[in-house]
Amino acid sequence: MAKELIFGHQNPDTDAIVAAISYSYLQNKLGYDTEAVALGEPNEETAYVLDHFNTKAPRVIQTAKTEVDAVMLVDHNEPQQSVSDIADVKVTHVVDHHRIQNFNTADPLYYRAEPLGCTSTILLKIYNENNVAVPEVIAGLMLSAIISDTLLLKSPTTTDEDRDAVKTLAELSHTDYQTYGLEMLKAGTNLGNKSATELIDMDAKSFDMNGHAVRVAQVNTVDIADVLQRETELREAMGAENKSKNYSLFILLITNILNSDSELLAIGDDASKAAVQKAFDVTLADDKANLPGVVSRKKQVVPQLTAAFE
Amino acid sequence: MAKELIFGHQNPDTDAIVAAISYSYLQNKLGYDTEAVALGEPNEETAYVLDHFNTKAPRVIQTAKTEVDAVMLVDHNEPQQSVSDIADVKVTHVVDHHRIQNFNTADPLYYRAEPLGCTSTILLKIYNENNVAVPEVIAGLMLSAIISDTLLLKSPTTTDEDRDAVKTLAELSHTDYQTYGLEMLKAGTNLGNKSATELIDMDAKSFDMNGHAVRVAQVNTVDIADVLQRETELREAMGAENKSKNYSLFILLITNILNSDSELLAIGDDASKAAVQKAFDVTLADDKANLPGVVSRKKQVVPQLTAAFE
Repeated sequence: MAKELIFGHQNPDTDAIVAAISYSYLQNKLGYDTEAVALGEPNEETAYVLDHFNTKAPRVIQTAKTEVDAVMLVDHNEPQQSVSDIADVKVTHVVDHHRIQNFNTADPLYYRAEPLGCTSTILLKIYNENNVAVPEVIAGLMLSAIISDTLLLKSPTTTDEDRDAVKTLAELSHTDYQTYGLEMLKAGTNLGNKSATELIDMDAKSFDMNGHAVRVAQVNTVDIADVLQRETELREAMGAENKSKNYSLFILLITNILNSDSELLAIGDDASKAAVQKAFDVTLADDKANLPGVVSRKKQVVPQLTAAFE
Repeated sequence: MAKELIFGHQNPDTDAIVAAISYSYLQNKLGYDTEAVALGEPNEETAYVLDHFNTKAPRVIQTAKTEVDAVMLVDHNEPQQSVSDIADVKVTHVVDHHRIQNFNTADPLYYRAEPLGCTSTILLKIYNENNVAVPEVIAGLMLSAIISDTLLLKSPTTTDEDRDAVKTLAELSHTDYQTYGLEMLKAGTNLGNKSATELIDMDAKSFDMNGHAVRVAQVNTVDIADVLQRETELREAMGAENKSKNYSLFILLITNILNSDSELLAIGDDASKAAVQKAFDVTLADDKANLPGVVSRKKQVVPQLTAAFE
């Protein structure tokens, strides 16, 4: 069987990196020849996770076709979030927990999506369905991914299956997940050494919304005011990205991981800002709005904004 | 929980009808409120199956939004093969074994596709994963669907999982699947009372291939020459469909279920016929070509033709 690469989305977060490692281990056990790679370096949170569980970061690739003919995607499906030459390779497997958009294949494939809080929760089900034991280290990584995606089970994307998976994986990895989880999330809020441009690109994804190119970035913090001290340079960086990448709209979601509220900063043309106001039923003041309880880009931002653009 | 409809593709075959019935039973066991419906009347083969297992044909619907806000799809995902107003309802679940094309959602959903011979094989796995027992009658229906889709396990789409599923379902339904299967397939070859227009629409699907609208129909027979006696009226009916529906190409695959060969008849513009010749590496003679061993539209026709149109 020819080798395949497995990777998560661009600007990888903990789930994107971990799901590739975990799915690669499983698929190799099932007889495939795969390698987990990544479309970028680990962020601060993921670096903390990999260090904690003594795991090397996956090799970063720029293109896939130079190495393989076929790939497996985790934690994403939209081509503009994937490897640059995704159109040139065959996708044989997808495991994901997002909406499906602009994902087209010529052949039947394995596609497993569930509306759960984290790809790693789905992967744990697939391990169980195939009677493959999760090694201790991979259990720790998967636990970290669920904590990351659900903000320690507090995001509205959290399901009972995520809660059960956290319990199982905490046991398998001998981890006190409450204590570890908060330390891990705090590690991800270490933004001091980042430039404004790095900060708005760290956890950013592009979306096609009825023909409008929309960029949605999110940063986690324990103090929103602390991040907003850099508002001027953040605005400049977002405006520059809109110009150079032709985004109609750039949204930055600054999320307080302690109380699960977000401040939204929206830079874009007037029509896009009108869509933002409609989507969240708010009036932007100086391009900003407070969104109490909003922490999930996937569930609380993208569908609402997509609808507002229609 | 609000009621949802479950249905397979237009011009339903046995798998499309049966998968809706079987998935609806399972989902209702899991706490959903669903009804299996169909986008057309059962064909001769499916009528034989439903009669054999004393099951009523699902109610036929023309639109979905008039009844529900959300639906579940089985055995298809491409919108042009679905209910007419699919764009107006939310798709919450898909279980399928085809390529993914033009399927877009605003929200995360449950999507389960595997490159297996039949949707019912995937459904049996989902029953097992959820520890739901398959009732005897539904086991018989699912067995029939796998026999239908794999031409009694002879199609190249057949996998070990399909073979295992047939054994399991034959036991659960107390069916001698070899004897029953051949009778069932033969029932589907009863074409005598069909008009040419009915015949080319019975098991036909539309595909978007790089901007070309392509219609691919298939009829099963035990004697290809017998079907070709009606070539003149078949050609006329296919040409009329091309005209009224703006298809660039209409392909009719006449498949001998006894020896797994097919005769292909291609009606369309010159560019489309060139694509056909390229796709199958044949020279059309009087718009026809013999395709030994070709029985699967999904695996042996659509990907090749899609590539030829690119």
